[in-house]
Amino acid sequence: MTSLTDSTPSQIDAAVRAAAAAAEAYGTSAGAARAALLRALADALEAERAMLVPLADEETRLGPARLNGELDRTTFQLRGFADQVASGAPFAVADDPAVAGAPPAGRPHLTRVRVAVGPVAMFAASNFPFAFSVLGGDTAAALAAGCPVVVKAHPGHPKLSRAVAALASRVVQQQKLPAGVFGCVEGASVEVGVSLVRHPLIAAVAFTGSVKGGVALWKEANARARPIPFYGELGSTNPVVALPSALAANGAALATTLAGSITLGCGQFCTSPGVLIVRTGDAASDAFVQQLATALEAATPHAMLHAGIRAGFDAGAQRVQAQPGVTTLTAPAPSTDAPRARLYATDAATFIANHALQEEVFGPACLVVRVRSLDETLAVLAAVQGSLTVTLWGAEADTPDNRRLVRAAEQIAGRVLFAGVPTGVAVTAAQQHGGPWPSSTQAFTTSVGYAAIDRFLRPVALQDAPGWLVDARGVAA
Amino acid sequence: MTSLTDSTPSQIDAAVRAAAAAAEAYGTSAGAARAALLRALADALEAERAMLVPLADEETRLGPARLNGELDRTTFQLRGFADQVASGAPFAVADDPAVAGAPPAGRPHLTRVRVAVGPVAMFAASNFPFAFSVLGGDTAAALAAGCPVVVKAHPGHPKLSRAVAALASRVVQQQKLPAGVFGCVEGASVEVGVSLVRHPLIAAVAFTGSVKGGVALWKEANARARPIPFYGELGSTNPVVALPSALAANGAALATTLAGSITLGCGQFCTSPGVLIVRTGDAASDAFVQQLATALEAATPHAMLHAGIRAGFDAGAQRVQAQPGVTTLTAPAPSTDAPRARLYATDAATFIANHALQEEVFGPACLVVRVRSLDETLAVLAAVQGSLTVTLWGAEADTPDNRRLVRAAEQIAGRVLFAGVPTGVAVTAAQQHGGPWPSSTQAFTTSVGYAAIDRFLRPVALQDAPGWLVDARGVAA
Repeated sequence: MTSLTDSTPSQIDAAVRAAAAAAEAYGTSAGAARAALLRALADALEAERAMLVPLADEETRLGPARLNGELDRTTFQLRGFADQVASGAPFAVADDPAVAGAPPAGRPHLTRVRVAVGPVAMFAASNFPFAFSVLGGDTAAALAAGCPVVVKAHPGHPKLSRAVAALASRVVQQQKLPAGVFGCVEGASVEVGVSLVRHPLIAAVAFTGSVKGGVALWKEANARARPIPFYGELGSTNPVVALPSALAANGAALATTLAGSITLGCGQFCTSPGVLIVRTGDAASDAFVQQLATALEAATPHAMLHAGIRAGFDAGAQRVQAQPGVTTLTAPAPSTDAPRARLYATDAATFIANHALQEEVFGPACLVVRVRSLDETLAVLAAVQGSLTVTLWGAEADTPDNRRLVRAAEQIAGRVLFAGVPTGVAVTAAQQHGGPWPSSTQAFTTSVGYAAIDRFLRPVALQDAPGWLVDARGVAA
Repeated sequence: MTSLTDSTPSQIDAAVRAAAAAAEAYGTSAGAARAALLRALADALEAERAMLVPLADEETRLGPARLNGELDRTTFQLRGFADQVASGAPFAVADDPAVAGAPPAGRPHLTRVRVAVGPVAMFAASNFPFAFSVLGGDTAAALAAGCPVVVKAHPGHPKLSRAVAALASRVVQQQKLPAGVFGCVEGASVEVGVSLVRHPLIAAVAFTGSVKGGVALWKEANARARPIPFYGELGSTNPVVALPSALAANGAALATTLAGSITLGCGQFCTSPGVLIVRTGDAASDAFVQQLATALEAATPHAMLHAGIRAGFDAGAQRVQAQPGVTTLTAPAPSTDAPRARLYATDAATFIANHALQEEVFGPACLVVRVRSLDETLAVLAAVQGSLTVTLWGAEADTPDNRRLVRAAEQIAGRVLFAGVPTGVAVTAAQQHGGPWPSSTQAFTTSVGYAAIDRFLRPVALQDAPGWLVDARGVAA
């Protein structure tokens, strides 16, 4: 692996200054120009696929099938954001004509427009070297909004990051846009990220990564003389509630599906299911847990992204295993380059009382929490507090119990599934990727799907504005 | 004045627990039920006007004309929020049907709904004893969203707060809603507010007040084990850019209008104009400043809300006056019960270099900043950083200079005016009351107008949800 050289303070400053210099022209550019940029970026990624995928595989060991699929997803979302921008929908204005007379009924003419917030610092993730890295979802959303982006490359895939950054800069130039529309800095040290977040010309931050790293940078954003929005997508345990009825009907197939979701990408997905809630003393539930343990024992995940993530997984698994009241359901197996999947079990009271069990273990591990009642299920979900997803199997019927369950899931999650598994996050207008803390630092926003653009468009009300201005802002596409 | 007794920790806990107990039923109630509550609250305020307005006047000294108008505004916005809820608009869902096939194009069925966030702690403001107090805009928005509210009454008007809180509790009971839908605590000490923000069952905070108090509580919200959204509307200097053309055409009338805005409510409006940017060496601008000084000298503001605000104004005015490079344009006059309005002047370089000049002085004071060029105007606006409003007089024509000016104003403000004065904030769908820090802690949200509801509705994506659930969430009205 190539190690990163830290960008120097003057390189970081230059990248941010270039972004700030481009912000006005790009922020007021026609939607068509931004859509053309996003489409050209997608085209360039595809044109260089034969070079990029092997580079990504060399650095991440995720394999060509996954990486080709991920590149497809990346170009899909770049083009999807292009379509959004071209449609003008994200820039729709609210217009309230003047009403004559005294307030409160009388009022001036007000037009609520949306203004690009300015240069965005984007922290690339390790686990999606294309889709949440240099030209991933956050970059696409910020560029769609009209914001220049300064990417902080992830040290897990430095050569790929440099290749994609070079591609992006070339496309920006070909589109005759200011070079500062896209910039990239790199560094494995904390200082690079901190100086980027502290830079007075940065207007917002997008981050995907660990709770520890994300919280540290979120504190930096809040400690600025002028705090700025920090959109962090952090840890998530993604509970799956498997009701007896679903398991009685289809337990064996669901066990295979869930084992696949837990081990997908060696568990290095932000939506990897880390908590499984089943009913205690139910035959179908017991059989399901046994089938799941067997499937996990048989799974052979690929190696983790890098040694640091592997060490974190081993420590996290060790931590869970060491807690009182926790049993290990998977048989010990020799870990070689890749870790083996783990399944643990505990009861509701133990889970609720012990914060160490509620934290995400990033990797292929899942904790079964056995509950005796709906009330215990609700209490376990409440203890989770914040998660990207909650999955409910067997809650399709309109019953009072299911309504309570749905309500509890909605209270703690950004996405509630009634079928399938939480891994795999569709890029659509209705997607919501971000739930209450710690899964997101801004649970009212999403980092996947087209509403992600909203994070970079600040509302401004124009009062009694001249017609040319209303026209200019209202037809941004 | 009646002094407040601090609510005890157990009273605060009981109020929050009652709100949390009501959250599920109220959060999933029909829009019609919430609309009925909001309308009944408006009706009750009007029915008790003859008792409430004198009580408010006794405690705030704002006078019956202003207070009757403010009560009208309060009932107007309660009914406006009721209309919004009844229309269903704030609960509109985004629905993406399933698409067959492999990802990224293939996708499950996703429905993005909006879920009431839970109990809201609402900190009443001193300067609007009706419209931003117990049943003010924040309370109306939270109730409209489906969130129970625990109000922290402002110690500046304790008797009025108790009377309005009693009225609200009575109406909640008459509407056959759980008592916890509305609660009120009181206290002049910091501890009451802090324990409310720290309470684990509080889901979001709305605050209108000073930078100092707001920042302290914002830090508390961020220091929780699970940080929550803190919607703070803090200080703002509301720059007015008066271009020579506007002053040449209409300077005398504008001076009278601006003096009225600066002294309105004795300057105790969050949108009170505190910075005036004029061109140096321009005859119309010089005449305008002189007319403004004369009008301010002639003004006789009423007394300020309480001794603490008065002391803060005197200290702030003293601070500005004492800075090097600042001259005082208003003649000294004896302050009695009420302060006299002040007008100061400085140049662009002095303003930009001295942070003490950029801070809000809450009260009837304005600082004239004389600029030599458009570039200096833009630099002064950039130094302001964040403001609820920027007013531009004389920027109606579509010229490159005016486009730059508008862009600079949009970058730092939540509302940009092209006529009139910033005091008076219309309650409409297109309103935006909240700009970059420090004017708001969440510049992407508004605390006035119907979009204020969005602060309390968290998006949740339902994946492959059963039909009954999509129906239930999609027709919340």
